[in-house]
Amino acid sequence: MSMQPIQVTPSAYTYPLLIKQLLHTPLATAPQQEIVYGDKVRHTYRALALRINRQGHALSRLGVQGGDTVAVMDWDSHRYLECFFGVPMLGAVLQTVNVRLSPDQILYTLNHAQASVLLVNREFLPVLAQIRGELATVKRFVLLDDEGGDLPEGFAGEYEALLADCPDHYDFPDFDENTRATTFYTTGTTGLPKGVYFSHRQLVLHTLAVCSALALAPQQGGFHRDDIYMPLTPMFHVHAWGMPYIATLAGVKQVYPGRYQPEAILKLIEKEQVTFSHCVPTILHMLLLTPYGKQVDLSRWKVIIGGSALTTGLAKAALERGIDVFTGYGMSETCPILTLAQMEDPALLADADANVAVRVKTGRPVPLVALRTVDAQMGDCPRDGKSAGEVVVRAPWLTQGYLYNPEASEHLWDGGWLHTQDIGHIDPQGYLQVTDRIKDVIKTGGEWVSSLELEDLIGRHPGVSEVAVIGVPDEKWGERPLALVVLKPEFADQVSAADIQAHVKVFADQGHISKYGVPENVRFLESLARTSVGKLNKRAMREQLVK
Amino acid sequence: MSMQPIQVTPSAYTYPLLIKQLLHTPLATAPQQEIVYGDKVRHTYRALALRINRQGHALSRLGVQGGDTVAVMDWDSHRYLECFFGVPMLGAVLQTVNVRLSPDQILYTLNHAQASVLLVNREFLPVLAQIRGELATVKRFVLLDDEGGDLPEGFAGEYEALLADCPDHYDFPDFDENTRATTFYTTGTTGLPKGVYFSHRQLVLHTLAVCSALALAPQQGGFHRDDIYMPLTPMFHVHAWGMPYIATLAGVKQVYPGRYQPEAILKLIEKEQVTFSHCVPTILHMLLLTPYGKQVDLSRWKVIIGGSALTTGLAKAALERGIDVFTGYGMSETCPILTLAQMEDPALLADADANVAVRVKTGRPVPLVALRTVDAQMGDCPRDGKSAGEVVVRAPWLTQGYLYNPEASEHLWDGGWLHTQDIGHIDPQGYLQVTDRIKDVIKTGGEWVSSLELEDLIGRHPGVSEVAVIGVPDEKWGERPLALVVLKPEFADQVSAADIQAHVKVFADQGHISKYGVPENVRFLESLARTSVGKLNKRAMREQLVK
Repeated sequence: MSMQPIQVTPSAYTYPLLIKQLLHTPLATAPQQEIVYGDKVRHTYRALALRINRQGHALSRLGVQGGDTVAVMDWDSHRYLECFFGVPMLGAVLQTVNVRLSPDQILYTLNHAQASVLLVNREFLPVLAQIRGELATVKRFVLLDDEGGDLPEGFAGEYEALLADCPDHYDFPDFDENTRATTFYTTGTTGLPKGVYFSHRQLVLHTLAVCSALALAPQQGGFHRDDIYMPLTPMFHVHAWGMPYIATLAGVKQVYPGRYQPEAILKLIEKEQVTFSHCVPTILHMLLLTPYGKQVDLSRWKVIIGGSALTTGLAKAALERGIDVFTGYGMSETCPILTLAQMEDPALLADADANVAVRVKTGRPVPLVALRTVDAQMGDCPRDGKSAGEVVVRAPWLTQGYLYNPEASEHLWDGGWLHTQDIGHIDPQGYLQVTDRIKDVIKTGGEWVSSLELEDLIGRHPGVSEVAVIGVPDEKWGERPLALVVLKPEFADQVSAADIQAHVKVFADQGHISKYGVPENVRFLESLARTSVGKLNKRAMREQLVK
Repeated sequence: MSMQPIQVTPSAYTYPLLIKQLLHTPLATAPQQEIVYGDKVRHTYRALALRINRQGHALSRLGVQGGDTVAVMDWDSHRYLECFFGVPMLGAVLQTVNVRLSPDQILYTLNHAQASVLLVNREFLPVLAQIRGELATVKRFVLLDDEGGDLPEGFAGEYEALLADCPDHYDFPDFDENTRATTFYTTGTTGLPKGVYFSHRQLVLHTLAVCSALALAPQQGGFHRDDIYMPLTPMFHVHAWGMPYIATLAGVKQVYPGRYQPEAILKLIEKEQVTFSHCVPTILHMLLLTPYGKQVDLSRWKVIIGGSALTTGLAKAALERGIDVFTGYGMSETCPILTLAQMEDPALLADADANVAVRVKTGRPVPLVALRTVDAQMGDCPRDGKSAGEVVVRAPWLTQGYLYNPEASEHLWDGGWLHTQDIGHIDPQGYLQVTDRIKDVIKTGGEWVSSLELEDLIGRHPGVSEVAVIGVPDEKWGERPLALVVLKPEFADQVSAADIQAHVKVFADQGHISKYGVPENVRFLESLARTSVGKLNKRAMREQLVK
C-alpha cells in the first residue's frame, strides 16, 4: 500500500498531546472555579495555573531538567494536583510514591526510578530518616508542610516559600508527546515492586476517553460539569484513577481531603457538597459504618468502586443511603480505567434488583478499549455471559512495559495483548464480569470455583461484614474453598459455620454455583489481611492460615 | 533537555489512533442498537459492521488501495455512514463531494483530489453525465440506488449488489495514524474551491474531544447515550460536524434522512423520536415554518446551530417550541467544531432572557482547543467581552494546509496559528462572540460596525423574517451599512425603512451599538442570496445591489 501521511504546511502547528494542553479549556471557561484542600486551602483554577507556573520556576531552580524524575510523598492535596501538571509539563517524570509501602520498599522504588528530587510531606519525615542514607539518586529535598515548622536539615526549601519566590509565568516547552510523564510501582503480592510508566499522549487519551465514557451517562454513573469531585483512591495510586486530570479538564470544583480520616471525609462531603468520588470497597464500607456518616445526606454522591470487587451486599447498603455506586475496572498497568459498570436503560434503572446486578459487574469497555476474554491459545471465548477466559486488552494508554524489566514486560505483552491475569466472561450486552485472579481460582475435583463469586454470595448473609475465600490443598479434591468471615458486631457469635454453609447451599441448589463450591471450611476472624492499598491480601491469608 | 520517549517493549501494541478503533465500544456494548435510513432501511450496529467489512472487500475488488481517493455523491444515508468508516479503514481517502456545487465545480474538485472511484446516487446521474467526459482520474463508478433501476453504462456495479457478493470479514490493516482519511472542498465566496484534509488521528481526537464537550453538559446542550441522532447538516459538509463518528462511538440510535425535505424530516423526528441534530439557521427556520411542524412535539429536540449566526429571534422562536437550541462554531478547515454555546448554571438556565443571550453566543472552546482573539501583531485582546480581534486557534484536528496549495496554506497558518478570518471578542466567562468575517466588518467614520450584530438587532423586529447587512461605499464615511430585509408574509408592506431605523435607534440610544450603526439605507426584498450550503452570500448581494 502507498498510504501517505497528511502533508504538513511548514508554518502549521503540529499539535502534540501534552498534559499542558488539558488546561486550555478550564482556564478559559472556569478560571473562578474552586479547588479546596481539606479545611486548609481554598483557591481558584486561576491560582492553580499561577502555582503550576511558579512550580516550573522553582523546580528549574532546583536543577530539574527534562528526563529527570521528581518524586512526591504526600496525601491527597492541592499541591499534588499541581505536581500532576507541573512536573510533566517541564518534561520531567512525576513519581507518585506509595506511602503505604514499607520504608525498604519506598527506598527501592526511589532508587529504581532514579528520582533526583523528592517532595515530602512533614508527616513522612520519620520514614525518610530511615532511608535517607541509602537514597542513591535523590539530590534535593522539598518540604510539603501544613504546619509551618522548621525546615529539616539538608532540605532545599519549603514548597510554599519556594513558590512565593517565583515569577507568575513559566514558558512550558513543547516536546514529543511520547515523553514519559509519570511512573509508579505496582504493589504485587509477590516479588519486588514493578515500575509502570505513562507518556503525555497516554494520559491525555485516557483523560478524553474516560471523560467521554463517564459524561455520556444520561443519569446513572455520570460525571458532568455540575459535579464536585473528591478523590478517595490516593493520588499516589494509578493517577487517582486519572480523575484529577478529568475533573480539571471539565473545570469542576475539586476537593482534596488530605489523609483519609472517615469523619473528616464525611464532613467534607457534607460541607463542600461533593457529588463524585472513587474508592476501594474498604473505604466505602468504613464510611458507611462511621457513626457521623448516618446523619450526612449522601443521596447526591456517585462513587466508582474499584481495586476489589464491589459485593452485592455493599452495593445494597450504599444504595440504601442513596449513593449511586458502581464498579470501575483497571489496574496499575492500565493507567487505569478499562471498564465502567454504567447503565442507561430506564427500565433497568427502575428495577432495584436487576440494577444492583449491573452495578456489581466489572463493566463495559470505555471508548477505544479493545477487550477480549481468551483461552490459552488466545482464541476468543463466546460472549455468552458464562464462558470464562483471561481478560486481555489493547488501549492507547497501557504501560508499554515494566521499568528496566524486559522479561516481565514481554510476559505482560505476550502476543501483542496486555494480559491482566484476571479471569472473566462477557455477556451479550458487553458487560465484563471478572470472576477471579488467575491465581485465585479454586480448582476442586476438576471444576473451577470462583472465589470472588463465593465471596459475593457469603457476603449476602445478613450477619456477614466481610469475607474472603481462598483455596486450600486437599488430598481428594486437589483444592477446597476456605471461607474467612468477619461478622458484624451485632451478630458476634450468632452465626455458625453451618449457617454459612446452609446459606451458600441455597444458591447451589438453585444452580447459581456448582455444589462443589459450598465450603465445608469456614473460619471466623476479627479482621482480614489487606495490602497497603486496601485490597484483600490472599497471599498473607494463605501463609497465615494454610498449613 | 534530555527527555526520552517511553520505552516500548517489542511485543507491546503501540495503539495507533485509527478510525476503526472507534468501533470497539459500540460493537461490544450496543450491537443491537438501530441505524435508520428514512423510511427505507432499518438495521443494527452489527449490520453496520458487517457491511463495512463487505465494503472493504468490494472496494478492494474495484482496485482501491491505500492512498487512493474514493469520492461519494449521496444524500445523508446509512451508506454514507459506512463510507465514513470503511473507506479510510482501507487506508484510502474519503472525498465527500458537495453535491450543491455547480457541475463545473464538482468536476474541478474530483479532478483536483484525483479521485479514482466515485460512488454516486442515481439522483446525480444527470450531473455526472455533464462532466463524465472530463473526469481525469476516476476509473470506476458505483451506483447508490434506492429505486432498483438499471445499471448505467460503464458502471462497475450497484452498491448493494457488490456488498451482497462479499464475505463478512475484512482484515482492516493497522497503519500510521497520520494517514489522510478524508478530504473535501471549502465553498469560499471567492476563487476556486480549496481542498482541506484530515488524518485518522485528527478525526479520532475530534470525536473524543467534542464528545466530551457535549456529554459533560448536565442538562442544556448535552449529548448522552439515550439520545437519538439525526444529521441536518449534510454528510458532505465537514463530516456532518463529526457527529456521525461521535454518535457511533456513543452507540446511540442514528437516523439518516436522505435528501432534506422539511415535511419528511419532521415526520422522521416524530416517528423515530429524534433528540439531537445540528443545522444551519435556514434549515431550522424552514422547519419551524412548515405547517406539518406545528403538530410535532419538538420539546425533546436539541439542535446545534452553525454555519451562520443564530439570531436571537430564531433562538426565541425555537425555544417557544421547546427546542434546546444553541450555537456551535467551526469551519471546513477546523474539522469542524471549535466552540459550543453550552451553559450549566441552573440560575442562568432558569432566566429565559439571559439564557437566550448565551445560546446565541459563539460559544466556549471544547477540550484541547487553544483559542485567542488577537490584534494585527498577534497580541492577545483583553478578555473583557468587548475588545475585538481576529480569532486564531490551535487544536489537534485542524487541516494542516490546503491540498496542493502551499501559498494559501502558509497564509492560513501564518505565525503558527490557524487564522479563521473571523472577528470576535471573548468575555470573562470564556464565551467567544464572533461579530463578523474580517471582510464583513463595516468601517464607517473610523468606527467598526459589526454587520452580524446589526443583523441580530434588526432581526428582533417582530415583522422581520430574515435580514442581511452589507457595507456600501460612501464618500463621506468610507462605508455605510445597508440593511436587506425580508418581511414575514403577514407584515408585508406594513413595515417601513423608518420603522427599522427607529427600531435600531433604540439600541443605539441604550448604548448597545454605536450610533454610526443605525442604517439609513434599508431595502425590502423577497429573499436573500445564499451559497450552496445555505449561508448568506454577501458577495452576491454586493454584486447585485451595490453600484
